[in-house]
Amino acid sequence: MKQFKWGLIGGGEGSQIGLTHRVASAHDRHFDFVAGALDIDANQAKQYGMRLGLDHDRAYGSWQDMLEGEKNRADKIDLVTIATPNSTHFEITKAFLENGFHVMCEKPLTMTSEQAKQIVEIAKETGNICAVNYGYTGYPMVIQARHMVQSGQLGKIRLVVSEFAHGHHSDAADADNPRLRWRYDPKLAGDSSILMDCGIHALNMATFVTGQEISKLSADFASCVEGRELEDDAMINYRMSKGTVGRLWTSAIALGHQHGLTIKVFGESGAIRWAQEQPNQLYFTPLNQPTQILERGMASLCENALSASRITAGHSEGFLDAFANLYSQIARAISHQHEGQKIDPSEIWFPTAVDGKHSIDIVEQAVKSARNGSQWLVVNS
Amino acid sequence: MKQFKWGLIGGGEGSQIGLTHRVASAHDRHFDFVAGALDIDANQAKQYGMRLGLDHDRAYGSWQDMLEGEKNRADKIDLVTIATPNSTHFEITKAFLENGFHVMCEKPLTMTSEQAKQIVEIAKETGNICAVNYGYTGYPMVIQARHMVQSGQLGKIRLVVSEFAHGHHSDAADADNPRLRWRYDPKLAGDSSILMDCGIHALNMATFVTGQEISKLSADFASCVEGRELEDDAMINYRMSKGTVGRLWTSAIALGHQHGLTIKVFGESGAIRWAQEQPNQLYFTPLNQPTQILERGMASLCENALSASRITAGHSEGFLDAFANLYSQIARAISHQHEGQKIDPSEIWFPTAVDGKHSIDIVEQAVKSARNGSQWLVVNS
Amino acid sequence: MKQFKWGLIGGGEGSQIGLTHRVASAHDRHFDFVAGALDIDANQAKQYGMRLGLDHDRAYGSWQDMLEGEKNRADKIDLVTIATPNSTHFEITKAFLENGFHVMCEKPLTMTSEQAKQIVEIAKETGNICAVNYGYTGYPMVIQARHMVQSGQLGKIRLVVSEFAHGHHSDAADADNPRLRWRYDPKLAGDSSILMDCGIHALNMATFVTGQEISKLSADFASCVEGRELEDDAMINYRMSKGTVGRLWTSAIALGHQHGLTIKVFGESGAIRWAQEQPNQLYFTPLNQPTQILERGMASLCENALSASRITAGHSEGFLDAFANLYSQIARAISHQHEGQKIDPSEIWFPTAVDGKHSIDIVEQAVKSARNGSQWLVVNS
Amino acid sequence: MKQFKWGLIGGGEGSQIGLTHRVASAHDRHFDFVAGALDIDANQAKQYGMRLGLDHDRAYGSWQDMLEGEKNRADKIDLVTIATPNSTHFEITKAFLENGFHVMCEKPLTMTSEQAKQIVEIAKETGNICAVNYGYTGYPMVIQARHMVQSGQLGKIRLVVSEFAHGHHSDAADADNPRLRWRYDPKLAGDSSILMDCGIHALNMATFVTGQEISKLSADFASCVEGRELEDDAMINYRMSKGTVGRLWTSAIALGHQHGLTIKVFGESGAIRWAQEQPNQLYFTPLNQPTQILERGMASLCENALSASRITAGHSEGFLDAFANLYSQIARAISHQHEGQKIDPSEIWFPTAVDGKHSIDIVEQAVKSARNGSQWLVVNS
Repeated sequence: MKQFKWGLIGGGEGSQIGLTHRVASAHDRHFDFVAGALDIDANQAKQYGMRLGLDHDRAYGSWQDMLEGEKNRADKIDLVTIATPNSTHFEITKAFLENGFHVMCEKPLTMTSEQAKQIVEIAKETGNICAVNYGYTGYPMVIQARHMVQSGQLGKIRLVVSEFAHGHHSDAADADNPRLRWRYDPKLAGDSSILMDCGIHALNMATFVTGQEISKLSADFASCVEGRELEDDAMINYRMSKGTVGRLWTSAIALGHQHGLTIKVFGESGAIRWAQEQPNQLYFTPLNQPTQILERGMASLCENALSASRITAGHSEGFLDAFANLYSQIARAISHQHEGQKIDPSEIWFPTAVDGKHSIDIVEQAVKSARNGSQWLVVNS
Repeated sequence: MKQFKWGLIGGGEGSQIGLTHRVASAHDRHFDFVAGALDIDANQAKQYGMRLGLDHDRAYGSWQDMLEGEKNRADKIDLVTIATPNSTHFEITKAFLENGFHVMCEKPLTMTSEQAKQIVEIAKETGNICAVNYGYTGYPMVIQARHMVQSGQLGKIRLVVSEFAHGHHSDAADADNPRLRWRYDPKLAGDSSILMDCGIHALNMATFVTGQEISKLSADFASCVEGRELEDDAMINYRMSKGTVGRLWTSAIALGHQHGLTIKVFGESGAIRWAQEQPNQLYFTPLNQPTQILERGMASLCENALSASRITAGHSEGFLDAFANLYSQIARAISHQHEGQKIDPSEIWFPTAVDGKHSIDIVEQAVKSARNGSQWLVVNS
Repeated sequence: MKQFKWGLIGGGEGSQIGLTHRVASAHDRHFDFVAGALDIDANQAKQYGMRLGLDHDRAYGSWQDMLEGEKNRADKIDLVTIATPNSTHFEITKAFLENGFHVMCEKPLTMTSEQAKQIVEIAKETGNICAVNYGYTGYPMVIQARHMVQSGQLGKIRLVVSEFAHGHHSDAADADNPRLRWRYDPKLAGDSSILMDCGIHALNMATFVTGQEISKLSADFASCVEGRELEDDAMINYRMSKGTVGRLWTSAIALGHQHGLTIKVFGESGAIRWAQEQPNQLYFTPLNQPTQILERGMASLCENALSASRITAGHSEGFLDAFANLYSQIARAISHQHEGQKIDPSEIWFPTAVDGKHSIDIVEQAVKSARNGSQWLVVNS
Repeated sequence: MKQFKWGLIGGGEGSQIGLTHRVASAHDRHFDFVAGALDIDANQAKQYGMRLGLDHDRAYGSWQDMLEGEKNRADKIDLVTIATPNSTHFEITKAFLENGFHVMCEKPLTMTSEQAKQIVEIAKETGNICAVNYGYTGYPMVIQARHMVQSGQLGKIRLVVSEFAHGHHSDAADADNPRLRWRYDPKLAGDSSILMDCGIHALNMATFVTGQEISKLSADFASCVEGRELEDDAMINYRMSKGTVGRLWTSAIALGHQHGLTIKVFGESGAIRWAQEQPNQLYFTPLNQPTQILERGMASLCENALSASRITAGHSEGFLDAFANLYSQIARAISHQHEGQKIDPSEIWFPTAVDGKHSIDIVEQAVKSARNGSQWLVVNS
């Protein structure tokens, strides 16, 4: 497979998210980093781009310049990643899709369901890829979980319990820390904080693994740290399209949890559980039998889980390996398209704008439910 | 401390619950088993009692006979344990309390909040002890958790998350298993199944550890196995008397969970978590510091946790040791009473009728909320 | 089964070991505590005995008085437990066996192999039971492990790795702590410290589970804390009677280990591992298959493991339950003897003088090997 | 820091080791893969090199051609990685070092101590870097462990226990599997199998973390699977240069262990433990205090551990991230050299030829000891 050209918008100096995209895209050598508009400050954007090895004329000062500069080049970028503040995702994604670029957008895809709907339509019309960075779906044992659930190894799915709880916003003394403050300010963060930021990953995990959409929900939000306007802890109860019951807990004040993204799926003939902090194992309990510990790399895993894995069982693969798997999948999809092959939707397992939109639909209804005494509300898909 | 005389009602041959009460009461040699009405069948009750070593005249055929037989003896029992079907708890507990006996009643204390209220009043009027068997509160590390929370080591408590999830009712083929069937039949089990059976322990754990009552709640019930009329999975969101947010998950279809009673308490300056399946450790995360593993038996634990512990750190103590701690506490309370000392309520940490009533109040409101679209309802205390 | 009469020698006030024997013998109500010589000080022995509820004439001032007092009574004790300092085990055990009593002796059975040999012979000649308190063998999942190994479920056994490492002797400032000092003084402790004290349990675990004896060994001893004459850390490599390779690590300075008794058995078609600090699970890895987590109480376990278990899976059973299983087994053996049945050696799984002697043989050769450059030495059985 | 040019020898199509070097060197974009001699078959070497994107003239057919081709280029490679069969490491490493290249050599550095000594000398004379791939040293929490030990946070180090046990050579039916067979054939593998293959990592971990060399040892080897001439299980007891006691277990037949590289270090005032299968946590037990769980990414870690970490705490970093850290360190060292700075040995923490030689010295003495009744032998450094 040939190496593709890749550009990055956002992810300036010191940014964690920029670093992870650069590492993940380079990891399997599918993408070569050739263009970027890395900072809101034009000068810093250019300087930092050049320090990272970009050519002078492709270290752009703004995403608009980058769009202009790239769209007419013969060697233009094949994929652009958008890692800017949430409120700008819609505009930039729209612009690049409409100008013929494939896009990888950070989550959340947009700020509103209405915007997300537009992106879904544009991606469909243009035929361009619009991936959304639910990077945790790239873990091999998550892919294995999805395979086991969707191939019927657990029987009919009764219940999904997922959570994303951390404790990094527990310190009340952090109230004025600029890294945190905006997250609880409705003017900057929108109507939801921790649910939009973290819970959304656990929601997407539930839909990704089961292959079902969420059809209705009831939510309870709490602002546990004094002075916060938005929720720092939330619970959502829901029902899925095929009747599965769902429960989601997300928290930013769960001291002792580092990055507690977990999922448990309970079926009529078996159950599985997985935790992001120990991602190389998947626990599988067949009905009336002992729990088994499935290890990443075991020969008995499904094809997709094995091919998403680089090293032998017992070594750990981590988040960057998982994240890199999304880039590998996107590279594969671009490659198919270049070769004139139609992209078979069933073989693209990376999250797309459709998933991005569904998450936002859910958050919007959860906000309404939480404001209305946990009333059950339908989620339109 | 002198050894007290103990009687048991219910807990017939093959009964798990009878066995655990006999072991727990004998464990520290505080109680001597001298009287019983062990079976609904009078003959079997007598035979089995004698096989367990009871004297001929104290192996009773019914609880009524036992009450008559014991109440006029000089060497009458000091404590009676009631381990009969739930629907009989009220009547028997009432009768024994009114006739001057101390009672240890299995949970749930009664079938209705109204009955529970009567028991609370009778216990208060008579001055007799009415303990309720929330046996998991007897674990030393639960006592330590309670101490840390209530002495302020975690600061103001923001959030409590407790659960009791098991998978032992997952097999749909068990529908006609008599051991299970009654649990999902409203005529026999009342309005709630898994919440009343298991979730109630996790609720009590939350109130026990925090020292707060639940003041309002919103519930979502699901019957995941086809054909069940009552819930086999439930989620309750609640608020406590001092403003703490609470979340409770209970399930009977959570394959892979054996007996998953856990509690996590998140405060403004620290958090703790504990799991019944590994009861000898308590995880403590002080704000901005690494998580610590506190071990049962460590010299730095609180007085009550240490005295509830029999063997050195690193050995495991199990459920029967925990349960026996309730009997030790009751023995201590009886002993104080015998010595004419007033029982200081602050030093009795075993659950009483007040706790039993509160649990039932909660379940009643949860049933109503679940039937009314997860509406938030006040819980009267 | 009738309740037997039980006496205790040693285990004075404040003694951990006395408490555990009293709880374990009472746990299943097989033994009634009726006689004791609980302290080296005659007066304290009597006072403490009476405080524990013994009759005036059976609260003895010395073991010699107790032997005299009991041997001619019609209602004499059925079993005596010896929980005195190690150097007195031989003399007292010998005296009680020769006078017709069944004995439960604390480990180590004696100070020398020669003494142990005498005890084995006396027990054989008199037909009296001489149990030795390797109490960890009573855990249900250890019994299950033994069953799986000895019934061939792991195929030919290649390797056994067991350890008993704790860190409770790590503090150099404890040098003068009387509770520790004697343990590293050859005049009081003999030729070995941590191996005789703790390692011996891990050695016995290896022979108990495999059913093999240790035939030769090479040892390395270290005194890690300055000033200690005896070893506080040791490694033994060995070979067993059927060719199995063995490795044992024991330590008293392994900070972070509380009571780290573990065993792993590797066979040609499967392997198991078990840890005392989480005794309710047994990890089983069949060749070329995922690891399974076997839970205490699961219906698929062997008969002996199930009958050694009191409560349902998912509850924890702890050390005292395990220890109580030894007393249950002894009660069963006494009961058979009373009924004139020959005791079938195959059904007695509690450790006896033969096991006690083998452990001491091993320690004696390990001491020699360690003093001779880890030379391999034969262990006579 | 500029990007350097990198070449690879060995690591042909389907090779795990080649893949990991390519990913690790690209991960942080410090090295650009520009030259290779990837297969023993010249044609396949060229074809595969071009498929991986090498230019036609730098996809070499042999390491000799590559040496010739590169040494006179202006844009020659800065670093060559040698991932060929063990018996060829010496010759190739020697040739490249002598011709002015920096080298990263797979372990073991050479087949004999004598060869290793030559490499050490050549590296010293030429001033070229000769790194050895003990890749597990690159985990951030191993770097933290090393910092804590060497900065005195555990006090004087008493004991080191490390192991590397896996079960992947357990299946006797694999005897003719070519992937395994050579490993137990002295003609191909030399005098040691599992110790040279895996145990060596655990030995290097002990010396890396403590900063001490091994000064003497006693070894016990076993060939547990019938028909094997070399050891598939080994134990080494040793003493280190500052008196620390050491114990090492390595096994290839430890079913249930996937890749069980662990290290525990016990000091007079604290202890730590780390396991490769959960590499993001380090357990730290200060004397007389509870065990703490240190998490990768915590602000309180040492500078080197933090800079070796790419993503926030709670995400997992895996083996490839760790391995990439070695390449980052090498890039840093090359960079310093290019800038005419002397490389400060204290700041190069990646393993070099000196470490490679020490490991081989140890294995040679362990083989002799195992053949001579576990006799204690001095290791010359």
